[in-house]
Amino acid sequence: MICNYGNDLKEMVDQVRIHTKHGKLADYIPALMKANPDDIAISIFDGQQTCFSEGNHQQLFTLQSISKILTLALAIMDHGEELVFDKVGMEPTGDPFNSIAKLESHVPSKPLNPMINAGALAVSALIKGASTEEKLNRLLIFVRELSGNDSITYSKEVAKSEFETADLNRSLAYFMKQHQVISGDIDHLLDFYTKQCAIEVNCNDLARIGFVLSNNGKDSTGKRIIPVEVSRIVKTFMVTCGMYNASGEFAIRVGIPAKSGVSGGIVCAVPNKMGIGIYGPALDRKGNSIAGMRLLELLSEKYELSIF
Amino acid sequence: MICNYGNDLKEMVDQVRIHTKHGKLADYIPALMKANPDDIAISIFDGQQTCFSEGNHQQLFTLQSISKILTLALAIMDHGEELVFDKVGMEPTGDPFNSIAKLESHVPSKPLNPMINAGALAVSALIKGASTEEKLNRLLIFVRELSGNDSITYSKEVAKSEFETADLNRSLAYFMKQHQVISGDIDHLLDFYTKQCAIEVNCNDLARIGFVLSNNGKDSTGKRIIPVEVSRIVKTFMVTCGMYNASGEFAIRVGIPAKSGVSGGIVCAVPNKMGIGIYGPALDRKGNSIAGMRLLELLSEKYELSIF
Amino acid sequence: MICNYGNDLKEMVDQVRIHTKHGKLADYIPALMKANPDDIAISIFDGQQTCFSEGNHQQLFTLQSISKILTLALAIMDHGEELVFDKVGMEPTGDPFNSIAKLESHVPSKPLNPMINAGALAVSALIKGASTEEKLNRLLIFVRELSGNDSITYSKEVAKSEFETADLNRSLAYFMKQHQVISGDIDHLLDFYTKQCAIEVNCNDLARIGFVLSNNGKDSTGKRIIPVEVSRIVKTFMVTCGMYNASGEFAIRVGIPAKSGVSGGIVCAVPNKMGIGIYGPALDRKGNSIAGMRLLELLSEKYELSIF
Amino acid sequence: MICNYGNDLKEMVDQVRIHTKHGKLADYIPALMKANPDDIAISIFDGQQTCFSEGNHQQLFTLQSISKILTLALAIMDHGEELVFDKVGMEPTGDPFNSIAKLESHVPSKPLNPMINAGALAVSALIKGASTEEKLNRLLIFVRELSGNDSITYSKEVAKSEFETADLNRSLAYFMKQHQVISGDIDHLLDFYTKQCAIEVNCNDLARIGFVLSNNGKDSTGKRIIPVEVSRIVKTFMVTCGMYNASGEFAIRVGIPAKSGVSGGIVCAVPNKMGIGIYGPALDRKGNSIAGMRLLELLSEKYELSIF
Repeated sequence: MICNYGNDLKEMVDQVRIHTKHGKLADYIPALMKANPDDIAISIFDGQQTCFSEGNHQQLFTLQSISKILTLALAIMDHGEELVFDKVGMEPTGDPFNSIAKLESHVPSKPLNPMINAGALAVSALIKGASTEEKLNRLLIFVRELSGNDSITYSKEVAKSEFETADLNRSLAYFMKQHQVISGDIDHLLDFYTKQCAIEVNCNDLARIGFVLSNNGKDSTGKRIIPVEVSRIVKTFMVTCGMYNASGEFAIRVGIPAKSGVSGGIVCAVPNKMGIGIYGPALDRKGNSIAGMRLLELLSEKYELSIF
Repeated sequence: MICNYGNDLKEMVDQVRIHTKHGKLADYIPALMKANPDDIAISIFDGQQTCFSEGNHQQLFTLQSISKILTLALAIMDHGEELVFDKVGMEPTGDPFNSIAKLESHVPSKPLNPMINAGALAVSALIKGASTEEKLNRLLIFVRELSGNDSITYSKEVAKSEFETADLNRSLAYFMKQHQVISGDIDHLLDFYTKQCAIEVNCNDLARIGFVLSNNGKDSTGKRIIPVEVSRIVKTFMVTCGMYNASGEFAIRVGIPAKSGVSGGIVCAVPNKMGIGIYGPALDRKGNSIAGMRLLELLSEKYELSIF
Repeated sequence: MICNYGNDLKEMVDQVRIHTKHGKLADYIPALMKANPDDIAISIFDGQQTCFSEGNHQQLFTLQSISKILTLALAIMDHGEELVFDKVGMEPTGDPFNSIAKLESHVPSKPLNPMINAGALAVSALIKGASTEEKLNRLLIFVRELSGNDSITYSKEVAKSEFETADLNRSLAYFMKQHQVISGDIDHLLDFYTKQCAIEVNCNDLARIGFVLSNNGKDSTGKRIIPVEVSRIVKTFMVTCGMYNASGEFAIRVGIPAKSGVSGGIVCAVPNKMGIGIYGPALDRKGNSIAGMRLLELLSEKYELSIF
Repeated sequence: MICNYGNDLKEMVDQVRIHTKHGKLADYIPALMKANPDDIAISIFDGQQTCFSEGNHQQLFTLQSISKILTLALAIMDHGEELVFDKVGMEPTGDPFNSIAKLESHVPSKPLNPMINAGALAVSALIKGASTEEKLNRLLIFVRELSGNDSITYSKEVAKSEFETADLNRSLAYFMKQHQVISGDIDHLLDFYTKQCAIEVNCNDLARIGFVLSNNGKDSTGKRIIPVEVSRIVKTFMVTCGMYNASGEFAIRVGIPAKSGVSGGIVCAVPNKMGIGIYGPALDRKGNSIAGMRLLELLSEKYELSIF
């Protein structure tokens, strides 16, 4: 099977490229408007020496919401499940990722899950570190380990741009501070949060990160980077709420644990098989890479990757 | 592995029996109050001749919400995916199973998924048949095929009791009629809906129904009863929204496609492995069998059944 | 002052007539589509022998939501304040008149006020009478007394049309039945409710009804028809929530207790001064007579009728 | 009539004093916990030389939400109606004064009225002034003019206490900033907002402020302080949404334009008759002075002050 990836990928990427025309770049984060909307790329890593890639897989882009699964893993490793899930729930929500309504209507006020912004902010507030710099450094080390890429860092430009336009996230954070879901300085939290969203990777990096999750927490050399239980929790959230408000449909159409970001990236972890990295910045209405979604559907069908 | 089920099950059931004391019977459907809250039973069917069972596995109980996955399968088989999902969405919701709020706030008005009452009503309205009797008959034939049990029928007493107290479901149905999600006579729909909820099964029946789903739509003799794609769709909904507002946590703690009902039943489909039927009418606060949930957690852990 | 009404009214009506072009007929009740959208009429009654009228003031139209203040008055007269306000609240709501959301989010479930549909249904359920016919008869007698017009009855055609399309009101009613806000047969309630909405009046009738309220419950002969306290309660609701979602703005711009209906009617009660009846079926976006609103603004300004 | 106020007031105050036992101090603003919960005081000012007062009418307390009507008046005087009501609506809301839900569900995002926190923040952001100090100074000058009391200032202690615990208001403000309802620095806005809430007055001051509103904007010497139209708008909001979620009931039971604060103060403006100031820090569940509400009910009944 593996030997065919190369040709198959090229064919599939060619086939879905047309879909990039029907999507558009995320316009609410100014820095993301610089991407090329025609880009579509994929990398697959199954633990062998190299990734199978197609398209512009060297193109750097920022993690955005993909960072949510990484800070979640790190927070659980920092504090254990119990403490983390005392601050954030485990249930999918039918509301948009940036919604505040349920924080008000639910008693006690607690974000429904770590994949919506409120939940991700609450999780970020838990990362250990004496300063934003230290927290970010710990997260970067973690991401570098997962991807095996020591050069990964964050984009100061994107982070700055997002920090300045993060009023909705500030609103969510202050609301949770009022209700004792989070504590501490909100500007420091936003600083860390926007920097974690601005971490830059390429498709290969995502494929390798996805591989570790697919491999129950071990990298391709067999080194354990995430505890089994944590990798399982992360994959579960990827299925129930990893693709914004299209998670349910994605689970049916594709059936692979995946997390997307509005930069156009998607990381997938096919249990016990492979990690996949996608990049396609033209988004559909729900904020997912429009060509990337179609590409994963073809891939899942052809290689029977659905977990269901 | 299989040869151990017998002893293991007895041990596990003994271990979780204490939890029945911390739950309580569903009190909003009068007929359900007649159950014995101490009951806890399980059946496992892996396609071999008999089920492995423990506890009072012959006890009959009504399907209640478990019927939602069966009418969904039948509706898709009747009309195809496209038509069904034109009437009902695919996304999990953070709201209670009987909530009406999102029908009002979402434009267009459309139930978020077929596992909440509004969605199940919309799906039930699609079942083919010239009369309630014919629709119900078709559903009963389907359930008998899935379970291999020709004696399955519905409880007139429970159906009558539910029909008379179904004002909230009437409210949901008329709301959707106003918004053209459903059409036709609402009393007829409620008649069919409450009868489908009142279909009586035992643990063995559920295990065999779960097996067909786990076996991609074929029964143990190899006979196809549900198309592959339909069985995959059903299992996906079981994971993303099968356990009411505890679906997310259940996916993390257990990781098995499952659907519960307020009668205390749970049907599980472990992909390519087995079907499981649970009965334990003492419920937790979210409406799931309290001892049954614990039993599945033990089982999943011991036999590594999680799909994640 | 009074002697000028005649000329003033003509001038004002001419001035606002142009606004009828910017509104449109209510389209969700088929029977209302037969009205002439260009119509605009007014009657003023200050207790003297005749009304001052302008425009087509003999044109019959149905009360629709205007009936809400009449059933409220009758229900309080039937049962006293305490019982009525145990079933329905006194607070304005920022939600649309036909909204169901707050019935779900408020504990206990109780309509916020009697001017929204849910509240009016709860109030209608309280009207004394052994049958729908008897209830309706009692209400008609009350309306005839208020207006001094013995020929008032209801439109069977409009009532039938509304009954058949009242699925949203049925949804509200069943929801409240589930929560014990109302009891009894819902179809009977809807029958009464749609008939009360279909009571036909003209501008003169409304002006005389408004006069009784403005005169603290006595008609122009000095005969008490409504207790002082009840007429005060009704006028208060007219100010806080009489004009749908435009009540607050109307209170600022006009400042007169008023109740509108989607047929284009408006009844006003200027405390201790006069009753006003308006008819103008072309509605603004919020469901109020578009030219009628402007006419009342001019009138209030010219004669300083605001209570504030 | 006037000559009786003195005796009547004493009797009424004695009568309602027992109600103070059934309320409690606002506990979410630490500084307010220092008040004496047994206090109940009233002042009436009808434009004659002195106020009629009873109880501890010299006791200073902070304006809290009462300030909302003053900044509203000043903002309209600064910018005109049109600009102000482009930022904030005119409609009552059934939601709590500090709710954020409707900012999210309404399109465009805009606070429903200036009496809820979101609306008051939007209005405060409009007050002219190059700095917080200048804005506050302008507001203080305005309050001193209205009350005829040049010594009025704000409590630094209360302002500081509220600023530090204002996370919910920060959340509201950032949410509105995201949606372009307000602009500028949020910390500066919160600084001004918490200081305006901390302006200290006594009952006599409130009675005189209420008198100006009741007298259509002129003080007792005939000097115009607020334009007629502005004083009318303010009184209208006091009726439709001046008493938190009890505004509707207060309009029915009392029928006087009034605005309360969680410090226990209430300012009333009886049109063309008098201003009333109330102080009673023991609050009912909805945040209004529990004895003060009862006192106003007695007063309105005895002197027939209801505008309805």
